[in-house]
Amino acid sequence: MKNTLMRWKLPLICFAWQLAMIILFGIFIRYDEESDAHWIETRKSHNISSALENDFYFRYPSFQDVHVMIFVGFGFLMTFLKRYGFGSVGFNFLIAAFSLQWALLMQGWFHSLDFSDGKIKIGVESLINADFCAASVLISFGAVLGKVSPVQLLIMSLFEVTLYAVNEFILLNVLGAKDAGGSMVIHVFGAYFGLVVTRVLYRPKLDQSKNESVYHSDLFSMIGTLYLWMFWPSFNSAISNHGDAQHRGAINTYCSLAASVLTTIAISSLFEKKGKINMVHVQNGTLAGGVALGTAAEMMLTPYGSLIVGAISGVVSTLGFIFLSPLLEKYLKIQDTCGIHNLHAMPGVIGAIVGAITAAAASEAVYSKEGLIAAFGLENRLAGWTPHIQGGHQAAALCVTLLLSLAGGAIVGFILKLPFWGDPTDENCFEDTVYWEVPEEEGVPLYSVHSNNTPPLKLATNGTPITNGTTHQ
Amino acid sequence: MKNTLMRWKLPLICFAWQLAMIILFGIFIRYDEESDAHWIETRKSHNISSALENDFYFRYPSFQDVHVMIFVGFGFLMTFLKRYGFGSVGFNFLIAAFSLQWALLMQGWFHSLDFSDGKIKIGVESLINADFCAASVLISFGAVLGKVSPVQLLIMSLFEVTLYAVNEFILLNVLGAKDAGGSMVIHVFGAYFGLVVTRVLYRPKLDQSKNESVYHSDLFSMIGTLYLWMFWPSFNSAISNHGDAQHRGAINTYCSLAASVLTTIAISSLFEKKGKINMVHVQNGTLAGGVALGTAAEMMLTPYGSLIVGAISGVVSTLGFIFLSPLLEKYLKIQDTCGIHNLHAMPGVIGAIVGAITAAAASEAVYSKEGLIAAFGLENRLAGWTPHIQGGHQAAALCVTLLLSLAGGAIVGFILKLPFWGDPTDENCFEDTVYWEVPEEEGVPLYSVHSNNTPPLKLATNGTPITNGTTHQ
Amino acid sequence: MKNTLMRWKLPLICFAWQLAMIILFGIFIRYDEESDAHWIETRKSHNISSALENDFYFRYPSFQDVHVMIFVGFGFLMTFLKRYGFGSVGFNFLIAAFSLQWALLMQGWFHSLDFSDGKIKIGVESLINADFCAASVLISFGAVLGKVSPVQLLIMSLFEVTLYAVNEFILLNVLGAKDAGGSMVIHVFGAYFGLVVTRVLYRPKLDQSKNESVYHSDLFSMIGTLYLWMFWPSFNSAISNHGDAQHRGAINTYCSLAASVLTTIAISSLFEKKGKINMVHVQNGTLAGGVALGTAAEMMLTPYGSLIVGAISGVVSTLGFIFLSPLLEKYLKIQDTCGIHNLHAMPGVIGAIVGAITAAAASEAVYSKEGLIAAFGLENRLAGWTPHIQGGHQAAALCVTLLLSLAGGAIVGFILKLPFWGDPTDENCFEDTVYWEVPEEEGVPLYSVHSNNTPPLKLATNGTPITNGTTHQ
Repeated sequence: MKNTLMRWKLPLICFAWQLAMIILFGIFIRYDEESDAHWIETRKSHNISSALENDFYFRYPSFQDVHVMIFVGFGFLMTFLKRYGFGSVGFNFLIAAFSLQWALLMQGWFHSLDFSDGKIKIGVESLINADFCAASVLISFGAVLGKVSPVQLLIMSLFEVTLYAVNEFILLNVLGAKDAGGSMVIHVFGAYFGLVVTRVLYRPKLDQSKNESVYHSDLFSMIGTLYLWMFWPSFNSAISNHGDAQHRGAINTYCSLAASVLTTIAISSLFEKKGKINMVHVQNGTLAGGVALGTAAEMMLTPYGSLIVGAISGVVSTLGFIFLSPLLEKYLKIQDTCGIHNLHAMPGVIGAIVGAITAAAASEAVYSKEGLIAAFGLENRLAGWTPHIQGGHQAAALCVTLLLSLAGGAIVGFILKLPFWGDPTDENCFEDTVYWEVPEEEGVPLYSVHSNNTPPLKLATNGTPITNGTTHQ
Repeated sequence: MKNTLMRWKLPLICFAWQLAMIILFGIFIRYDEESDAHWIETRKSHNISSALENDFYFRYPSFQDVHVMIFVGFGFLMTFLKRYGFGSVGFNFLIAAFSLQWALLMQGWFHSLDFSDGKIKIGVESLINADFCAASVLISFGAVLGKVSPVQLLIMSLFEVTLYAVNEFILLNVLGAKDAGGSMVIHVFGAYFGLVVTRVLYRPKLDQSKNESVYHSDLFSMIGTLYLWMFWPSFNSAISNHGDAQHRGAINTYCSLAASVLTTIAISSLFEKKGKINMVHVQNGTLAGGVALGTAAEMMLTPYGSLIVGAISGVVSTLGFIFLSPLLEKYLKIQDTCGIHNLHAMPGVIGAIVGAITAAAASEAVYSKEGLIAAFGLENRLAGWTPHIQGGHQAAALCVTLLLSLAGGAIVGFILKLPFWGDPTDENCFEDTVYWEVPEEEGVPLYSVHSNNTPPLKLATNGTPITNGTTHQ
Repeated sequence: MKNTLMRWKLPLICFAWQLAMIILFGIFIRYDEESDAHWIETRKSHNISSALENDFYFRYPSFQDVHVMIFVGFGFLMTFLKRYGFGSVGFNFLIAAFSLQWALLMQGWFHSLDFSDGKIKIGVESLINADFCAASVLISFGAVLGKVSPVQLLIMSLFEVTLYAVNEFILLNVLGAKDAGGSMVIHVFGAYFGLVVTRVLYRPKLDQSKNESVYHSDLFSMIGTLYLWMFWPSFNSAISNHGDAQHRGAINTYCSLAASVLTTIAISSLFEKKGKINMVHVQNGTLAGGVALGTAAEMMLTPYGSLIVGAISGVVSTLGFIFLSPLLEKYLKIQDTCGIHNLHAMPGVIGAIVGAITAAAASEAVYSKEGLIAAFGLENRLAGWTPHIQGGHQAAALCVTLLLSLAGGAIVGFILKLPFWGDPTDENCFEDTVYWEVPEEEGVPLYSVHSNNTPPLKLATNGTPITNGTTHQ
């Protein structure tokens, strides 16, 4: 028997890491110019006429949308499992709350360290970037959902955030790639990282019949889907340049997502038995258009270009669920609980390619002279770049991301395979009762959702009122 | 037996229409000045000092609120049906995603076609208007919920969006009416259109006992209600003039909605058996105050005027559920699944009348000279208008809307009555299993929500673990 | 037997109070400068160059987030009770909708009465403050949840809003305390008020086994938790000064809340049986970091200071649920349904103390000269204040709040104890069926969630299809 007791391990790791965060924040993290009380004097010296010029007013609404996607979007999307709702929402909450703290530090060291005083200066854009990094971890979580302990998840988060920041630094700062909505940085990275981890943790005797939904769990999952779908325009435009780039990023993503919905439902009805629509596809394929615009959303992709990308990625993602996932499990031994290969990996790669092509095809006629410089940041070091060079670097960025995520996932997978992290037995996978106090008596389910292992007759025959549930005080 | 197989019909219509959208977007739709990369140069030539002057920052937060109303608000409001949750959320998702694309085109041709190059220029306000148009279709969906196939819904959407754009053009451009939150354009139009469609599709043998909720489906429905309720101030102010008009629209709607809550609960307790409150009324009547301010929200209605309108419309709407709906079904043969006559039709008419009166009563003393001109757009062609003329045109707009929606609904109803669209039999109405893969074994419900047709004893007697549910990969 | 019939009482009080609101709004409430149609002329005379300078654009996104917290956040947080979901969401809706109207009046008389014309001028900031006041009432509601009638709740709201406005006036205007996110004004006040009310209404024979959750009700509750958690940065910064103060308030709260999540889960796993995590703690303790920053969020607390406060309050709150709540019930006879002592009272006191210390430690070095004046409003009457004086006044504010809430709660508790308000019997506590039409047949549950009192066998033996549920028309 495996020892899944969390009593000492989980509190210890939570306390230790929170303490580390406090110490490191104390040493390194300070407010940036626009969130510091000195701003009233900074404004005067910089001749900023209005308080509205504070970046807070450009980005805070988008930040809150992204925040909802991380915690409600990802959290509820994964509640489709009939007996793993607490783990889906709860562990999502735990690892995202840790990841964003650690991301503020890691991304700060790489991107916003002020060398004059050795401090990281944070503002609303830092919060968005930290949430983005957490998203990447949550994508990986989708692959191993139901098969790992919270301790394993926290360890995975620690390493994945670290590597995420390295990859992001290489892509944005070294290669000069653009990836505002993170097709590569977030989706491709998080997906392949998670897929390798779940490959290393392969469980040959896993009972996939537990990887199932019930009627109401599918509705809870749709809450997650819809919030991801509705707020993806904010996600893809949250850190774009002020003005037209944010505006355009939202429009393109809006169009792309709409197209994904129609093609997802078309493919689902076409290939599922009796022509019925499968909720799994609706929960996931409809989002592919958002993933696939992660790189190009802020570019002059045009609305019809966005529709094309969204339509194609909805098709690819849904076909992946129907045909590819079973093959990946059978031949490559990849047990991908949420199907992140279909929702994040493939549409992410599409997004990277679309981004490279769109960048390579950019021209002054389409962007205007100044617009082109602003859109791709072709100043200073990059002043001489042509769109073709930009496109090439975008392609290189995809390769780097694939390499780093596969290698990183392998290493972390083997660390997580060590036998003392408290992972569940095969029988206990996809079961909340291992790590959570679940409101039901032993063997006597209050709730028939849980009744397929124990005959509900038991509840009838004993005849007495049964008191179960967690008492709230 | 009817043939409800969707395999070829649904994929075909989805693909065909998505392809048409791509082609038409390719021909017609481009970014507007503020979402185009040239904006950096436009700013200079127009002397716009700050990136914040981009319309994105005025309207994007409101747009996102409206977006939530369309997909979570309408989608979950309709999940009250115990066995039609997938259809409610899923078909809502499908037809809204199609309608907004088609609306961008239709509204674009009528409102924002740039005759210099024959292109429609879209920005964030276009997205809001497209969502508004989708809302109208979703209102009609509420009348036929559970009784039609997704193919019928897509066909209805195509025609309804078209006619919506025509009606909107007549009201706003020809008649010069004001209707920022769409009491007429959205609610009256969508409601009467849908009511006529459901009248034409009358099913004499429909078993209304299936049109029911269960405990948890009523809670899911409250998610929809609350998001509609909370974000209605954004809905009614989203496309108002910048500044005081948006500000005032939000305040008025906030007040009106609060009043609706108290009067709805009062009427429910007064007329329901044993003085108990009925969830159906809370889910719907509380929203009447938002509908009824759709025209006047941006006007100088005053906060107490808003309270009066909200209080009255809560009363009217709830009385409609209790007394009028049964009569409409019995005598007029209108089977209105969600009670849209009570939530949208009557409060919408109230809203149109309130708008006409408020407009007719406008004066320079209340608005200031410039304020009056700005509020009603009394420039150019309308320069000589008095408030009385405006009020008259508002009333005319209501009549046009009623005419067009009734006529349009009748025609579309007869089209939908053609026998090859795959609508369900009377027995299969309000049943997800017709069009959706539902996670349960044949005849053996996992979930007692569905157990009223099959004795759960079966589950007890066979004794073996039952594996059901859709397997996620 | 108690008479819980609501037929005449509830409609009467709803209509009477709504009518009173309409009359008082008619006499007193008008648009402020920025929501009045005259603003177009005001802008010119004040030389305001952009429509964006309207306060609407500074605060409306935050307002909408706060609005979601009030209605979905508080509403769904309380749906954990297995048979009280309608009451949780529905009564939350009712009393919030009344409280915010009454708060607009009460807060208006105390804070924004224009003595030149005797009118209260409202704008978006007034709406936020009204929502804040409603939050305080909803906190108190958490203590008495499931044990009172809607009439009692409306009476409690009337008195509590009144006293809230008095306390707020003393704190902010007389004592010059700062409390932008309401650690004292909202949380300490609402919590101790509610705790005393529930103490006075003590039910010695209450069956606490009904104060329980089921699996899906815990998931509904997590919707509430997550929306409170995600939007708390908006809550704590919604009415702060424009610019850096709003920006900083959001960052600090974001950090604090993240830390609470880790320490809450650590403590839960450490002390619960078998080291399993308890959903009650996750639903509540994770939010303590937001409450505890209600006073200091806008101050220069630093990000690591925020982490420390969040980590500690997560620990304190969760320990409270495990150890303190049973003692409060046993020895002080405080039956606190939602555990508001742990979520609001203790973290609120922590927040008040943190605020006092942070204010006392403020310096020109940290804030800059002008920044210090702006942050604490040290102008006019307060021009000579030092940070130490400010800190002292913050501490005094806490004492005043404690006194007023305890005294007010006692008085209101005795009023609510009068025998004719229709409160439920002990057996009917935590039961929706008393005040709501619940979709199930007498004694034959459709839904096994409710089946622990009646054997579901009954459903099997009668064998016939059972039609239950509320018919929607």
